[in-house]
Amino acid sequence: MNRYAERMQYVKASEIRELLKLTEQGDIISFAGGLPAPETFPLEELKVVSHQVLVNEGTKAMQYSTTEGYNPLRQKIAERMKKLGVETTFNDILITSGSQQGLDFSGKIFIDKGDVIVCENPTYFGATNAFNSYMPTYKTIDTDDEGMVLSHLEHVLQTTERVKFIYAIPDFQNPTGRTWSVERRKGLVELARKYDVLILEDNPYGELRFEGEVRPSFKSFDTDGRVIFLGTFSKILCPGMRLGWICASKEILHKYIMIKQSADLHTNSISQIQAARFLEQYDLDEHIQKTIKLYRSRRDLMLKTMEEEFPKEVKFTHPSGGLFTWLEFPEHINARDLAFKALEKKVAFVPGDPFFPGENKKFNTCRLNYSNMDEERIVKGIKALAEVIKESL
Amino acid sequence: MNRYAERMQYVKASEIRELLKLTEQGDIISFAGGLPAPETFPLEELKVVSHQVLVNEGTKAMQYSTTEGYNPLRQKIAERMKKLGVETTFNDILITSGSQQGLDFSGKIFIDKGDVIVCENPTYFGATNAFNSYMPTYKTIDTDDEGMVLSHLEHVLQTTERVKFIYAIPDFQNPTGRTWSVERRKGLVELARKYDVLILEDNPYGELRFEGEVRPSFKSFDTDGRVIFLGTFSKILCPGMRLGWICASKEILHKYIMIKQSADLHTNSISQIQAARFLEQYDLDEHIQKTIKLYRSRRDLMLKTMEEEFPKEVKFTHPSGGLFTWLEFPEHINARDLAFKALEKKVAFVPGDPFFPGENKKFNTCRLNYSNMDEERIVKGIKALAEVIKESL
Repeated sequence: MNRYAERMQYVKASEIRELLKLTEQGDIISFAGGLPAPETFPLEELKVVSHQVLVNEGTKAMQYSTTEGYNPLRQKIAERMKKLGVETTFNDILITSGSQQGLDFSGKIFIDKGDVIVCENPTYFGATNAFNSYMPTYKTIDTDDEGMVLSHLEHVLQTTERVKFIYAIPDFQNPTGRTWSVERRKGLVELARKYDVLILEDNPYGELRFEGEVRPSFKSFDTDGRVIFLGTFSKILCPGMRLGWICASKEILHKYIMIKQSADLHTNSISQIQAARFLEQYDLDEHIQKTIKLYRSRRDLMLKTMEEEFPKEVKFTHPSGGLFTWLEFPEHINARDLAFKALEKKVAFVPGDPFFPGENKKFNTCRLNYSNMDEERIVKGIKALAEVIKESL
Repeated sequence: MNRYAERMQYVKASEIRELLKLTEQGDIISFAGGLPAPETFPLEELKVVSHQVLVNEGTKAMQYSTTEGYNPLRQKIAERMKKLGVETTFNDILITSGSQQGLDFSGKIFIDKGDVIVCENPTYFGATNAFNSYMPTYKTIDTDDEGMVLSHLEHVLQTTERVKFIYAIPDFQNPTGRTWSVERRKGLVELARKYDVLILEDNPYGELRFEGEVRPSFKSFDTDGRVIFLGTFSKILCPGMRLGWICASKEILHKYIMIKQSADLHTNSISQIQAARFLEQYDLDEHIQKTIKLYRSRRDLMLKTMEEEFPKEVKFTHPSGGLFTWLEFPEHINARDLAFKALEKKVAFVPGDPFFPGENKKFNTCRLNYSNMDEERIVKGIKALAEVIKESL
């Protein structure tokens, strides 16, 4: 008899995580993680609300609370969803331990072994890592600068059985930094309706737009409760609180609530109440504008330095928000080899292949994060990376 | 095609949770939940460490952190495990979002559909609720005032295939309040070794002993890494932080770490660091002694009042620690009916049948919690309950 469940064969320690451990050594310039800049954290404000909560409602915050989450926080989130075009109420919101928990629960609720998840190519490996323990198969859709190619998506939906949901990140996608056009968003929801599948919208970066207006979420085009929206405070407030949320129709949210109850009863009450007080007393939008300003200048600098320093054979995306840009090298270059060579020069990044869940992995790709390094390190790191690339050409 | 995964058929909203919702209305005297007394929460101390952490290491606390947990907290937990007879190091500790998450992960890591979990009868319904989404079957073992009857356990292990683990609560069990003798603990671990099965030790109450010495945990008798220990700060510090831990052998803990990573990346960093600072600067044992003193007097009062007020046909356990006592009524009494009648008199408790995972449910049983009501309410509630019982005899 096997000691472990069958699903454990599909769960692997993230290679990126192992790489990230290496980057913790000393003076590495890391473009590897997806960490927000710590200087954006509203530390002074958190000191104020933290004290307030403990003084005014400390024992309540320290006690068990409801699985759904702290109602004033759910209320504030429901209001904020309007920015992404969603009219909703606190009843449709479940507080989770980060949006990663929403990804895991989605696999748990919908996926039997062999069921199909349709996703972008490449897609966020943390999502597929969560889904994998429920043993799905993946159908990847050709993806360009406007999102999934809808004709390919329709072909796949027409010809594939057991599709449970379409997983996608509409804005500044992880890993590519690409954003769906509004037309494609509408088209996606229409196709999902036509073929009666659900959409799992993972939207951690939507509000971190550097240029133009925030775009309507997939959920904003939802007319019959088939879009499940995952949100998080990790990139707009701070990740350490582990506060995310799910917005879904009543029937579907009820399943998430039951799963949440059996998974960990409820999310940290102290952080939930503190976040609610923060949202009541401070202007999160103003705070986000400061974060945007910082990240925009870091993106600008990284793109400019890459343009100046990289050989012209290297292509990269020009994200208009979020945390990442995506590089494509000439085909003979393996980004894993490059990553080890770069580490010798004290520069870290994440090779692209783990982001391809299907068989057509592109080994000549990588993801660079620009949110977490200051300007000096960005220039120094990109220059070092350029040298490594040139040596490999 | 079914919209949901097969496992969702086995996941049910906790009936107790629905009952608990009723008890939130107004002036109910609730013996229903398993809530610690809020007056035991170290609020003043938390104010101090909360401020310290934000001032001295705020941005670190607000950032992403490692899946395993904050090392100084893991270190402190490893040291505390000595009280339960376990020699271990921080490397063997994973921080979880309460021990409920440890229960869920245990199902996920070990259970394929149809695998067998061996457990006490009755047992904690929050555990079976977590396990159920992995579709196990249960073999329940006859249990008396010293723990599982080992001859019955051996018979079951001899004759049952696909047993993955034995789940048990050694001290002041939920729901019965009963405690395993030291001999039975040793015998359990020996039988698990003989039949090569794992033990999942759920030990949330072990340190809350009102009389005599804290007993050695199952894990303390483990010689070959087959006991997985689940601990929590919920009952000795506060539940709102959602801080629990798993102590297991290296190979097994590695599986839990991978699952934790895909489930929610890591536990709330702010609370982890605050808890570590609390443990460094304050005497948790002294704090636990105060909690024990309070709970002991509440238990004494509840037992005394039941002795005085209840008809002699009603039997109840005499727990020497923890939060619960367990009642058995004459067979013709259905505790669910009783619960609704008691609610009319503004008294709440939990009927016993959900705690029986197998087919032999005892509907003439119920669980009473004494930790969360003051003395006046305990007396008033038990007197009202006595009336309801007398009316039903």
